[in-house]
Amino acid sequence: MSVQSLGVAVVGHAFMGKAHSNAWRNVGAFYPDVPQVRQHVLVGRDPASLETAAATLGWESVSTDWQAVLADDRVDIVDLCIPGHLHATMAMEALAAGKHVLVEKPLANTVAEAEAMVDAAAAAADRGAHAMVGFNYRRIPALALARQYVESGRIGPVRQARVAYLQDWLADDDAPMTWRMRKETAGSGALGDLASHAVDQVRSLLGQEVVRVNGELRTFVTERDGEQGREDVTVDDAAWATLHTDGGAVASVEVTRMATGRRNSLQVELYGSRGAIRFDLEALNELHSCLDGATAWTRELVTDPGQPYVDAWWPPGHTLGWDHTFTSQAADFLRCLGEGRPPTPSFADGLAVQRVLAAIEQSAAGSGVPVDPKETR
Amino acid sequence: MSVQSLGVAVVGHAFMGKAHSNAWRNVGAFYPDVPQVRQHVLVGRDPASLETAAATLGWESVSTDWQAVLADDRVDIVDLCIPGHLHATMAMEALAAGKHVLVEKPLANTVAEAEAMVDAAAAAADRGAHAMVGFNYRRIPALALARQYVESGRIGPVRQARVAYLQDWLADDDAPMTWRMRKETAGSGALGDLASHAVDQVRSLLGQEVVRVNGELRTFVTERDGEQGREDVTVDDAAWATLHTDGGAVASVEVTRMATGRRNSLQVELYGSRGAIRFDLEALNELHSCLDGATAWTRELVTDPGQPYVDAWWPPGHTLGWDHTFTSQAADFLRCLGEGRPPTPSFADGLAVQRVLAAIEQSAAGSGVPVDPKETR
Amino acid sequence: MSVQSLGVAVVGHAFMGKAHSNAWRNVGAFYPDVPQVRQHVLVGRDPASLETAAATLGWESVSTDWQAVLADDRVDIVDLCIPGHLHATMAMEALAAGKHVLVEKPLANTVAEAEAMVDAAAAAADRGAHAMVGFNYRRIPALALARQYVESGRIGPVRQARVAYLQDWLADDDAPMTWRMRKETAGSGALGDLASHAVDQVRSLLGQEVVRVNGELRTFVTERDGEQGREDVTVDDAAWATLHTDGGAVASVEVTRMATGRRNSLQVELYGSRGAIRFDLEALNELHSCLDGATAWTRELVTDPGQPYVDAWWPPGHTLGWDHTFTSQAADFLRCLGEGRPPTPSFADGLAVQRVLAAIEQSAAGSGVPVDPKETR
Amino acid sequence: MSVQSLGVAVVGHAFMGKAHSNAWRNVGAFYPDVPQVRQHVLVGRDPASLETAAATLGWESVSTDWQAVLADDRVDIVDLCIPGHLHATMAMEALAAGKHVLVEKPLANTVAEAEAMVDAAAAAADRGAHAMVGFNYRRIPALALARQYVESGRIGPVRQARVAYLQDWLADDDAPMTWRMRKETAGSGALGDLASHAVDQVRSLLGQEVVRVNGELRTFVTERDGEQGREDVTVDDAAWATLHTDGGAVASVEVTRMATGRRNSLQVELYGSRGAIRFDLEALNELHSCLDGATAWTRELVTDPGQPYVDAWWPPGHTLGWDHTFTSQAADFLRCLGEGRPPTPSFADGLAVQRVLAAIEQSAAGSGVPVDPKETR
Repeated sequence: MSVQSLGVAVVGHAFMGKAHSNAWRNVGAFYPDVPQVRQHVLVGRDPASLETAAATLGWESVSTDWQAVLADDRVDIVDLCIPGHLHATMAMEALAAGKHVLVEKPLANTVAEAEAMVDAAAAAADRGAHAMVGFNYRRIPALALARQYVESGRIGPVRQARVAYLQDWLADDDAPMTWRMRKETAGSGALGDLASHAVDQVRSLLGQEVVRVNGELRTFVTERDGEQGREDVTVDDAAWATLHTDGGAVASVEVTRMATGRRNSLQVELYGSRGAIRFDLEALNELHSCLDGATAWTRELVTDPGQPYVDAWWPPGHTLGWDHTFTSQAADFLRCLGEGRPPTPSFADGLAVQRVLAAIEQSAAGSGVPVDPKETR
Repeated sequence: MSVQSLGVAVVGHAFMGKAHSNAWRNVGAFYPDVPQVRQHVLVGRDPASLETAAATLGWESVSTDWQAVLADDRVDIVDLCIPGHLHATMAMEALAAGKHVLVEKPLANTVAEAEAMVDAAAAAADRGAHAMVGFNYRRIPALALARQYVESGRIGPVRQARVAYLQDWLADDDAPMTWRMRKETAGSGALGDLASHAVDQVRSLLGQEVVRVNGELRTFVTERDGEQGREDVTVDDAAWATLHTDGGAVASVEVTRMATGRRNSLQVELYGSRGAIRFDLEALNELHSCLDGATAWTRELVTDPGQPYVDAWWPPGHTLGWDHTFTSQAADFLRCLGEGRPPTPSFADGLAVQRVLAAIEQSAAGSGVPVDPKETR
Repeated sequence: MSVQSLGVAVVGHAFMGKAHSNAWRNVGAFYPDVPQVRQHVLVGRDPASLETAAATLGWESVSTDWQAVLADDRVDIVDLCIPGHLHATMAMEALAAGKHVLVEKPLANTVAEAEAMVDAAAAAADRGAHAMVGFNYRRIPALALARQYVESGRIGPVRQARVAYLQDWLADDDAPMTWRMRKETAGSGALGDLASHAVDQVRSLLGQEVVRVNGELRTFVTERDGEQGREDVTVDDAAWATLHTDGGAVASVEVTRMATGRRNSLQVELYGSRGAIRFDLEALNELHSCLDGATAWTRELVTDPGQPYVDAWWPPGHTLGWDHTFTSQAADFLRCLGEGRPPTPSFADGLAVQRVLAAIEQSAAGSGVPVDPKETR
Repeated sequence: MSVQSLGVAVVGHAFMGKAHSNAWRNVGAFYPDVPQVRQHVLVGRDPASLETAAATLGWESVSTDWQAVLADDRVDIVDLCIPGHLHATMAMEALAAGKHVLVEKPLANTVAEAEAMVDAAAAAADRGAHAMVGFNYRRIPALALARQYVESGRIGPVRQARVAYLQDWLADDDAPMTWRMRKETAGSGALGDLASHAVDQVRSLLGQEVVRVNGELRTFVTERDGEQGREDVTVDDAAWATLHTDGGAVASVEVTRMATGRRNSLQVELYGSRGAIRFDLEALNELHSCLDGATAWTRELVTDPGQPYVDAWWPPGHTLGWDHTFTSQAADFLRCLGEGRPPTPSFADGLAVQRVLAAIEQSAAGSGVPVDPKETR
């Protein structure tokens, strides 16, 4: 464990900035065995709101000067909680400045950006600066346990995965236009926002690569009221795909922002020859599984000693919330930094997800013809 | 109501023959308002097993002579509970002989057969003989109630449907070869057996036609032990499709026989602009819905007076089983016969499903390119 | 198996008469290995409604003459589906006439009646006529499986049981008065109607006797509109009890007709030193259990080969309904008759339940002081 | 809002000390509108472990000198996270020293202690020092919403409540002896630990007082291995009670540490004339209800804007964990302090719960005879 604590700079203080600040503020209390951190500086554009946010979220200082942050020796870690089109440049600058970098998912808006980031991360790693992409759902105890079950063969080779990420915040035709429904700012809609998590889980849980993709996209509400009047929605509301892996599995993916009644439902199902797994983010403390040839479903409340991440928290039956995943993510990141190991999911993982998203988009543009993610750009 | 009871001939006495016999034996007790029936004759090939089955299942007589059955004036209804490749010929012969005909799903193994059956049914209807295909799940009270909710606009226009039919009886690599895994006898695998129900529900619940299909098929276990040694599996174990309807909806369909832990799980989800619906065949008395703009799920035990089919059965809270759907199906059929109305789902409905199945197969053969069901054959 | 079929007389054709008629009509089809039956005669008071019911429910004849039924040699089995205050006399007359007797639960309205019935049954058994009381929920596959689990020690010695039977048909203050809310006709309210099932399950599942009871009763709506105006409700709406068994377990029992939203929810929970069991009648195909020291819940859909009663019915995943319990009950009864074995639950079991109900009532009258069921009358 | 932040002293750094420290560390980030706090001093006995805990949990200083803490002007709030037999003395000393006091539940081990504490709190309130007892489950959004539903009449007058708190950490006979199983240290077993929450919920949700109690206690495992060998268990493993309220309702309470498979399941059910409510702590983000005369259950994920506590946290569908209840509890406490209002639940609420627990114990000692909580001591 490092003697001196690591200084953190978080960039952004909206939804994700709040979630990440919470993680940095609490990681030491629950994971005392990882390197300690200081909430050194919160970085943003608007001084007034930045001051308020910093005071609320526990930051020692604020900055609107990105170059000064990069030059600040007290900053060891840069954590980017900003829209995707800003990820590549800032992450690469931070790595070049010798900072460890954590980037919110998805890694970038394009394959090209992601490729450049992977190169930058590889170069930085040689100099001891590490990079990670923030697929926080890998830190849900139930999903981490699911991964252990798959890895240890308890459900046999996985044949089919069914992953859906269903939300409903755009089900209302009258929901107003935001930057999230414009291609120039958001890149894509449900695809980048939700399918990125789904694809990461498929890769992570199966430990396999996607080699072929059939995809479709649909925008159900094609116009919405913007601040300057009626405006075209230029991203997808929903996406469907089948992912074929190099291990012979098929994963169906369905993501949408139009699923009335589904507030935030990432559903993961895996079917192997000797078992199965089910999970729903709306009940994130629970894992349902058939193991070792059983055909009846066992529901575990994943709060028992020895289960992934659990020992850091509370006694059995005392459940965790959504935001705890960020604290555990910070701990995993810090532990790797402390040990000089590359953290995961790496930027290469982020790129692999990005290629699959691009393949879905490319397949959809071609009416569903199959696309190899390696051939996207 | 007819003064004289209608004589029924059931052809076949395996799984479906038992289920249909049960329906004919009980329909009068629960639906006294429809025409009465007599269990006149059970038809089969093997006299010994036929006698035993008839005695057990309540039949007055048996026959191994199909032509004699057709010629028998005491037979008013012919109910075909036999493999799909026998449907077309026998159904058309029965209609030609002036019998009302009920055919188990799927209607046929090919579009061409189904087309011929539709023509035959139209001709027969002019002579007062009616035909129906046995998509019994339309008679589940919860799904019939779901249809009412959609029709009356309580979930708004449906944008997305998610229909999965998950079974696990082939998840075991060592499950032996049967006629169901051979293309020449079964036509297809999970596709015809399970996706037929899924597609029928999409058409029935939405009241829309499928105009474009993207599909994929996969056989995970490509060889199994047959009676004469190792044998190729020549049908699909699983199928995936997206169905685009003329009403602008997209329905994802996933069916499989490899979903360990899913014994018989037909899952239906509908998402509209003002609500949603969820159903699972493994809990067939329950309907989950968000209605009239609500975003929280209400779970109804569909056993209340006034709900579809319920008045025929028991007081609130006294649940029905899988086999009751066949009894209610028989009642619907008989009621139409009594009133001289064409019963539904008609052979034309059966054909429409068949075209979608063919489109999935054709799309799959073309690596997922879109296919218009009207252009299949 | 008997060469000649047994003639059945059902007395009563309301709710229970319909359910039992359904059982006799179908038992042969699902349980061909037990003695065959004929639906010989339906017995009632009102000739007109009796004729209609008999025609609908499949009976060969009707009778309004109880003595003639007793004298009819073609009647081998008398099945009483009538209010409790008529059970004792008619059951004893039928046994005296040499008939096998099935009596709907609860066995009687008083301990004294039940004692007389036990004596009569013992005498009849010596002459080869057998008696059973109709606690049909023993025939739910999931509860029968639960019993196997307890018997084979898979949850260890049971320490606590929690049994609730929750209904809501009297939650509405405006629900009208019926004979069920009058002490002179119904004996008690939720106590006799619902707690009888609960107590039978405790005895049956644990295989233990209740030796001490603390009980309470409450009538929440003390007046209702009757046909002659406002009337006092003279039975309980709800009952609570703790039952202490000779095996050292404590079972809490709570039954009510006022539990809004609970249509017909018999909930059974058992907690042993090495496992636990959960069941809810509203989802009667499912059993939840922790077995052999496990602390996570496994949900079984009890439709697999080899599980109790299942082989008589359908393939895995094809669920049963409430009424199938009566068919299986008839089969169990007939199998015992065929083998000359006394069927269970016996009249003695019915009496044991009755004593516990009386103890609850007596304890309630004494403000909750403990009562030994053996000392009730 | 106070200009200067309030200094907090937490006494104890075990399970509850960690949970409360977490709350004080985070309350400002989520509830910026309440008075700010400083984590001034962590108080304990063992200097070494105290230092470590303070460093981990974010405390500025430590103290083993209780009198010094009382004398320290920088301490505005004393938060007692210590065993119950220490509550009374320390709480009264802190109040006498002018501190605001938060005491973990249950308020005390005896009615006499609780009465003294109520008197002390009343005297302190006159001088501007406020006291609260930590029934943190009142701060679960779903239970707070349930309270709103009851208060606004959406389920009608409540007739029956069913509250169970089921845990399983003593189900294993071989679980070792601790101070929690000795009467001299713990006062009681499941009764004080678990039933206190259950009784608080009954009082809080119904807004009614308990006027009559029938209770029973049981110790299933009467000896356990202690550090000095075999030892008697002198507290209850489980408790049962019926609580009769001044509003005419009956609440059944069942609490146990022997319910295998129930890790931490506080189950609350309310049945009113026009609706019902269900909740389970193992799924604490969900509330199930029938409202306004409905008889079907609606499941809300209580994460929507405007629902109690939710606005402080995350967007819809982003669930909370067990520990968030303490943060919201701290916020409620601070808000009252800022506004000079007495916080709830007050020491008087704590006393009322204590009287009911004592009544259960007294009734149990009398074989279940009814006891009026007002007459306990």
